[in-house]
Amino acid sequence: LAEAGQRKLVWVEQHSPVLQRLAATRLADGALRGVRVSVVVHLEAKTAYLALVLARAGAIVTASGSNPSTTQDAVTAALARQGVRVFATHGCPPAEFEAQLLANIDTAPEVIVDDGAELTQRLLRHRPELARGLRGVTEETTTGVARLRDLESQGQLEFPAIAANDAALKHLFDNRYGTGQSTFEAILATTNLLLAGRRVVVIGYGWCGRGLARAAAGLDARVLVCELDPIKALEAHCDGCTVLPLMEACRDGELFISATGAAKVLGGAHYAAMRGGAIVANAGHSSEEIDLAALAALAVRTEKPRPHIEAFVREDGSRIYLLAGGELVNIAAGDGHPVEIMDLSFSVQALAAHRLAAHGRALGRGVLSFPAELDREIAAARLETR
Amino acid sequence: LAEAGQRKLVWVEQHSPVLQRLAATRLADGALRGVRVSVVVHLEAKTAYLALVLARAGAIVTASGSNPSTTQDAVTAALARQGVRVFATHGCPPAEFEAQLLANIDTAPEVIVDDGAELTQRLLRHRPELARGLRGVTEETTTGVARLRDLESQGQLEFPAIAANDAALKHLFDNRYGTGQSTFEAILATTNLLLAGRRVVVIGYGWCGRGLARAAAGLDARVLVCELDPIKALEAHCDGCTVLPLMEACRDGELFISATGAAKVLGGAHYAAMRGGAIVANAGHSSEEIDLAALAALAVRTEKPRPHIEAFVREDGSRIYLLAGGELVNIAAGDGHPVEIMDLSFSVQALAAHRLAAHGRALGRGVLSFPAELDREIAAARLETR
Amino acid sequence: LAEAGQRKLVWVEQHSPVLQRLAATRLADGALRGVRVSVVVHLEAKTAYLALVLARAGAIVTASGSNPSTTQDAVTAALARQGVRVFATHGCPPAEFEAQLLANIDTAPEVIVDDGAELTQRLLRHRPELARGLRGVTEETTTGVARLRDLESQGQLEFPAIAANDAALKHLFDNRYGTGQSTFEAILATTNLLLAGRRVVVIGYGWCGRGLARAAAGLDARVLVCELDPIKALEAHCDGCTVLPLMEACRDGELFISATGAAKVLGGAHYAAMRGGAIVANAGHSSEEIDLAALAALAVRTEKPRPHIEAFVREDGSRIYLLAGGELVNIAAGDGHPVEIMDLSFSVQALAAHRLAAHGRALGRGVLSFPAELDREIAAARLETR
Amino acid sequence: LAEAGQRKLVWVEQHSPVLQRLAATRLADGALRGVRVSVVVHLEAKTAYLALVLARAGAIVTASGSNPSTTQDAVTAALARQGVRVFATHGCPPAEFEAQLLANIDTAPEVIVDDGAELTQRLLRHRPELARGLRGVTEETTTGVARLRDLESQGQLEFPAIAANDAALKHLFDNRYGTGQSTFEAILATTNLLLAGRRVVVIGYGWCGRGLARAAAGLDARVLVCELDPIKALEAHCDGCTVLPLMEACRDGELFISATGAAKVLGGAHYAAMRGGAIVANAGHSSEEIDLAALAALAVRTEKPRPHIEAFVREDGSRIYLLAGGELVNIAAGDGHPVEIMDLSFSVQALAAHRLAAHGRALGRGVLSFPAELDREIAAARLETR
Repeated sequence: LAEAGQRKLVWVEQHSPVLQRLAATRLADGALRGVRVSVVVHLEAKTAYLALVLARAGAIVTASGSNPSTTQDAVTAALARQGVRVFATHGCPPAEFEAQLLANIDTAPEVIVDDGAELTQRLLRHRPELARGLRGVTEETTTGVARLRDLESQGQLEFPAIAANDAALKHLFDNRYGTGQSTFEAILATTNLLLAGRRVVVIGYGWCGRGLARAAAGLDARVLVCELDPIKALEAHCDGCTVLPLMEACRDGELFISATGAAKVLGGAHYAAMRGGAIVANAGHSSEEIDLAALAALAVRTEKPRPHIEAFVREDGSRIYLLAGGELVNIAAGDGHPVEIMDLSFSVQALAAHRLAAHGRALGRGVLSFPAELDREIAAARLETR
Repeated sequence: LAEAGQRKLVWVEQHSPVLQRLAATRLADGALRGVRVSVVVHLEAKTAYLALVLARAGAIVTASGSNPSTTQDAVTAALARQGVRVFATHGCPPAEFEAQLLANIDTAPEVIVDDGAELTQRLLRHRPELARGLRGVTEETTTGVARLRDLESQGQLEFPAIAANDAALKHLFDNRYGTGQSTFEAILATTNLLLAGRRVVVIGYGWCGRGLARAAAGLDARVLVCELDPIKALEAHCDGCTVLPLMEACRDGELFISATGAAKVLGGAHYAAMRGGAIVANAGHSSEEIDLAALAALAVRTEKPRPHIEAFVREDGSRIYLLAGGELVNIAAGDGHPVEIMDLSFSVQALAAHRLAAHGRALGRGVLSFPAELDREIAAARLETR
Repeated sequence: LAEAGQRKLVWVEQHSPVLQRLAATRLADGALRGVRVSVVVHLEAKTAYLALVLARAGAIVTASGSNPSTTQDAVTAALARQGVRVFATHGCPPAEFEAQLLANIDTAPEVIVDDGAELTQRLLRHRPELARGLRGVTEETTTGVARLRDLESQGQLEFPAIAANDAALKHLFDNRYGTGQSTFEAILATTNLLLAGRRVVVIGYGWCGRGLARAAAGLDARVLVCELDPIKALEAHCDGCTVLPLMEACRDGELFISATGAAKVLGGAHYAAMRGGAIVANAGHSSEEIDLAALAALAVRTEKPRPHIEAFVREDGSRIYLLAGGELVNIAAGDGHPVEIMDLSFSVQALAAHRLAAHGRALGRGVLSFPAELDREIAAARLETR
Repeated sequence: LAEAGQRKLVWVEQHSPVLQRLAATRLADGALRGVRVSVVVHLEAKTAYLALVLARAGAIVTASGSNPSTTQDAVTAALARQGVRVFATHGCPPAEFEAQLLANIDTAPEVIVDDGAELTQRLLRHRPELARGLRGVTEETTTGVARLRDLESQGQLEFPAIAANDAALKHLFDNRYGTGQSTFEAILATTNLLLAGRRVVVIGYGWCGRGLARAAAGLDARVLVCELDPIKALEAHCDGCTVLPLMEACRDGELFISATGAAKVLGGAHYAAMRGGAIVANAGHSSEEIDLAALAALAVRTEKPRPHIEAFVREDGSRIYLLAGGELVNIAAGDGHPVEIMDLSFSVQALAAHRLAAHGRALGRGVLSFPAELDREIAAARLETR
């Protein structure tokens, strides 16, 4: 098992030139040596590799999964063999998952690499006395940054918390290039259908939506964009997309991809208006973008024609196909972001963890930006290692 | 098992609008009723669907697989349940495969829908007396058409043989649109790597190469093209690709895709020139495009970092990655052509079979073209059913 | 005057690497020395340069314009100064133009580089005795090749006539790359309007139409294609264009470009269906694609808002704008094909003329193909001089 | 003369749907009636149209040119006939130009629509007592906004000054879509060269550079990007461009377009490294991006092969071509931004002027943002009038 996990980690390492370089330079200065670092990530190969990099830099790393369903036991076995302490098992029940997070906290981390502020919140709640030992926290997600700001406004952040999510190398690249490619990779592999000539409706023209529209057009789909903000909508128009209201797009579209960050973007009236054969997928923040209850309400029965595809049969016998149960389609029905994209994101995290280990509370308290010069350094390293 | 196969067939049917329409119109005229039709195809859902369409049109269909490794038992079970007689089992040994083909011939087919002329050749060799009962043959592949022309020149084709492969709706669409999309779909899903910014070397600028170049550029790769014919090379240049000799491309490229139809396009000198981390795949006619022996000779050891990826480790420790063992990457590491592309190809085959059933030897003898007006009719049907 | 013409010729020469190379290699072998060559071309700098290349290779060149309106006196003055005999004046009346062509014939040409077979036809009609002295003819246009085939079928072609038009380096490159770029260059410079987001209707999806569609999409227009042949139409669909019937496109389109080769593609019913503000241009073979009489019939008055734009005001006060009077918009309102495209076309002509001078009637009689190996040689030279 | 100017204005009006709509709605409320508005713009048709819109809304408009060389007398004659008072003549000497601006100030404007803060600065310097009558200023350019902020920091801005330049509908659209299209339109019309396959070096990957890169790639050029900021450079890489240092690009490039906003981006060492035939143009802020003195120093002589092209002949006889003397190539050798882009920019200006007329000093003092809701309203109007 550990062998299989190891092979996966090696593939990731071979395609993570920036983390490799940082490991040999900045991270090798000893600042992380002996520092207790708790890492919360999806424990599949790409994300687990961050834990390994920190461990090799001398940190005493304890890893927890951010979700039992994404933990791969082969990967955790490989991590364990390389000296990372892991509290995670695939598919474990909620109570066990909770216990694992608390066990992680019991290691009295000095630095937390967090996801959704899950570990930080629990530490403050259950073991507040350990906060004094914290050099700081670095946070990967938008949601987590928002929670940390809440804690800050309540006066509970006595340590530095780096908003890694807001680094250019994190949000500017994964949304556009990562989401664009991996979403269509997943949709095409799942459906085995042709994109050329297909009417693809992209809902939302933020960074994700732009990435989706560009990839779809690049594969010769016809791109329809629905966007409420007229300035973004006019950009979509000038980018060559057909801009129209969502209800109208529902009547004409063939493949719908939601990327708005809002809830229940697609609901009953939309499903009713769609043609038979319409395919619905979500590439946005959460599975709530698609109103699943409304879709179920419309169906007289459902079918499972292929893995990750559910057909909702309407009264007239026509079908609407839902991909990956409305979850983020590139993760739930694919392999998620490309390795090189995670290399950028996790370079931000590694440098943030290093910075906290080196300077700790001297950085200040509360939510801090990731330094722009480090952002540029990562970009430069990526360019040099092409 | 049959249930699972049936679900797959339904998905294919739902995305085969042209075959569906032809089934309800031209194929419903009774010409196929009671006619014995032997079909040789890859027995996975997409291709098996053709057998089902002919059976529903009244033909007495006997199906053989064109390769034991591509036969899916769930699909054959579903076919059997719908009245198609199947001689095929997944992974059976060569002798059994041979016996199955001969058993198929023993049904005394009136029409053969052939792949590589495999059944036709065997019938002429083993049961020549059955040739008199043949209304005709329709052939799917370039190789098969070449074999039929050989037979014709030897005076052995006393029946009509339609070169379905040469129809515009067959070769014009699957090479460009089918290969372009499905090759990258397979490569990206297999490697989980980023295409944007990657230097992709397309070897050969025929229809397949053009499809590959267009898809790669559409996903923001930088496309390098190697092509010996200077006219095609100049087209590639004017299409925005970087045109250069193969040895030079080997020094610069990151992902190599062969689509030439020639043998041993990539050999020892090329592998020696490639950078560490280079990835090699084949999207061309046969696995012979890539000289596997030369690649193996170069390696001190091999590794298997992910499914369908083999790493050849060179003396200096650097690696060259081979995808899908040099087989056609979109089939061996993916799901092959999109359903809608096969809908076009198999509409040609279905109309050819129907034509042979209806008119038989009145069509003439020897290799015949697929009628241009039927080609146009299929295209028109596809446009109307968008 | 000659000075200004000379500067223009130098610019052309500097951007004609293939002709430059051929002048120094193949054309320098003496075969053209002392041979009387009559050239019929548009006498502007790009096309006049061919005459100069032949003259420098030793030929005794006599040049006529193919149309008085395109003759530039500065260019003919420069040609004259370099030893080319010119029979052409800008804007001369038809009788004088005719006299000039006949005077050209009176030089008893051994080789004719013809356009529309204009000189060849006149020679056979007015001075048939001179046909004996002809080593042969090379013809630039589709129309001219058709006329030569007529002559051949009437038994009047006793000399070789090379169909230069049919060379790959002629028809494959100018239609796609030349027409695509130069048409939009002319339309945008003439109208000063934005292409991004505009609904551009491309009528006809032949080589010209493909070039137009690709350029329009490349500048972020939304491309609508009207094409009667369903196979080409399906290609347009798979290339990402919106395919629809012309009447429907008329109701939605904003800019219409005809490239069909057929007459009266756009007529009264179409103009009546168009929105106010619609713009109509022709990029096809002749000005007859657009029915001007029907457009005039619709208008209560006309206006001239900008050079090369005529507004036809309909009864309701709305306008349809016609560009360049329906003439080929890239020539009539622009500078025609890019220099590098003409470098390819005229390299074909120069090698054809050279071939006729060297081998003459030994090549055979009647309409001959341009040799494929010369085609490839030109392409290779272009690639090497990038 | 006025007739010709009038026709040009009508063309602009017909393609300015947003300004037309605003004229009929917001601007028609009487707020501008009888208000003295001084407008400083380039007095060609597109920009002059703004003055006309304000005059039709009831304002007493006085117009000055922002540069004598861009003033078109036909346009000013047409403006005058419609009741706009004009102080501008084409090509007048500096002293007269200065006198015209002062004469404009003497009308005691209540609202100034300024360009580069030229009128505002002079009013404060020469007629400070008139500042009391000012309801406010709206400013079109980056430079002008900077000057106004200077005045503000010196305590001299007692009135509101709207930074129209910073509106999304101004800077987000003209740089990307306007510059992208119009720059290539101008370069292609000026040079008559082929873009397909050409190595185009875009210097600077800001909004302008992105627009240039996208348009160049869309016309099948190969795009090389030089950018100092590694984050932007990595974006260019992921957008499919070849990213490399400027000196390296100089050795390989064929067409160089500067869009950095910095001075002397291209200097002696760069010109020395370029291949013969290299073409240099500027699409950036000012003509200073290209070091003209260094280019002249390199040349043994210069030539003028075509209008707007100057050839600098180096000692070895090879040439570097400079377009439009290093001035903004889309304006100096073309018609500037497309009409629809100016429709957006001037809709911002018109609403800003209206806002100042209606509310004046109640808006506050100092430099103010253009309200986001008006920005969105303009975008929505543009979308509705497609």
